Amino acid sequence: MSRQFTLDDSQLLADIIQLRRDVRGNRFLSKPIDDDTLDKLLDAALNAPSVGYSQPWQFVVIREDAVKRQVHHSFIEENASGAKLFNGEKQRQYQNLKLEGILEAPVNLAIFYRPKPGAVLGQTSMADMGRFSVVCAIQNLWLMARSLNIGVGWVSIIDPESVKKILNAPQDAELIGYLCIGYVEDFLAEPELKTLGWEKQKTKSQVIFKETFNSSCTEGQSA
Amino acid sequence: MSRQFTLDDSQLLADIIQLRRDVRGNRFLSKPIDDDTLDKLLDAALNAPSVGYSQPWQFVVIREDAVKRQVHHSFIEENASGAKLFNGEKQRQYQNLKLEGILEAPVNLAIFYRPKPGAVLGQTSMADMGRFSVVCAIQNLWLMARSLNIGVGWVSIIDPESVKKILNAPQDAELIGYLCIGYVEDFLAEPELKTLGWEKQKTKSQVIFKETFNSSCTEGQSA
Repeated sequence: MSRQFTLDDSQLLADIIQLRRDVRGNRFLSKPIDDDTLDKLLDAALNAPSVGYSQPWQFVVIREDAVKRQVHHSFIEENASGAKLFNGEKQRQYQNLKLEGILEAPVNLAIFYRPKPGAVLGQTSMADMGRFSVVCAIQNLWLMARSLNIGVGWVSIIDPESVKKILNAPQDAELIGYLCIGYVEDFLAEPELKTLGWEKQKTKSQVIFKETFNSSCTEGQSA
Repeated sequence: MSRQFTLDDSQLLADIIQLRRDVRGNRFLSKPIDDDTLDKLLDAALNAPSVGYSQPWQFVVIREDAVKRQVHHSFIEENASGAKLFNGEKQRQYQNLKLEGILEAPVNLAIFYRPKPGAVLGQTSMADMGRFSVVCAIQNLWLMARSLNIGVGWVSIIDPESVKKILNAPQDAELIGYLCIGYVEDFLAEPELKTLGWEKQKTKSQVIFKETFNSSCTEGQSA
């Protein structure tokens, strides 16, 4: 029979999931990440589910400052445009947030989706399934990092086309995620955007329904 | 200081990740999943990262046969169309695969993306980030299920618009994933599509590059 995990095992996973954070550059230490440790992160990613076992992912490991600086330049441009989409107090709050750690993190990781020519089993009705497989790999890696007490920040305020040029990506490669990876002094107790009041935590009754969306659409009802 | 996990903890997570499988209906037991256990799965999902702390997910828990049967009908139609996209031996192989467990699994779970009006922090340069947050929630739930010795199968051979109608989903809801969830007799040692030779496992040198895509584009090189 295949391995049975215990309730203690399951609780440990719950703790890793609950204590994972999105880490920004003001929290990364300069301590390097060795190749064996990086391998553990990548192995977790490579053991993700993929639609039709297509494994449609590619990873670029970046340690050189020269490459990071070019990506950071794209962040600066996109962040300036992004800030303009918020108004008043929200814009002031936005401008005070530290939203990336590209230069501070010892390792950056760019993760791409490489579509396969022809039909992919399981992707014939839902075209995004290949992209979603790549995201599953990212989430596996993120949890593995937390279990190794390594912080990860997902930076999405960058221009995917600029990053492709910087990394000499093939034309059909699609940037799915750009991660900053490094050891940290500590992990915040809860998401920073929750602590700062940027967004409230949603209640279960807002997001969980039974049988159909008709079941408990009103807030306050038990889920 | 925030909690430090040990190397044993990290190895346990690596095992859960490595032993997770996509489970089909011929492997599900009829043993029910109680509400406390289902809550653990949903809590794992709700602790996923989300862009700008937007928590853009909604879940519909389905236990009624009448609802499952309607979704299963969509699978049958989409699967017939999907099979036609493969040729010769591949098509014969496809038609012999068991690709879902909608009726057999005691719980089905439909997971939706609900876009928020206006700008979302971190989603201003990459529009798919909200969808990707929902996928992170699915992967958290999938790992939590494996740690509880519960199987999950992600069914993507369904028409998202049909599923929306069946579940009375609001117009702006977008189906990201449809999961079959249940206890299993055992988990396969490796992905079934690998065992059957549908796709080969990719090598690290095919999917991992250093600094840019120029570094090791030829197969066989060490990553």
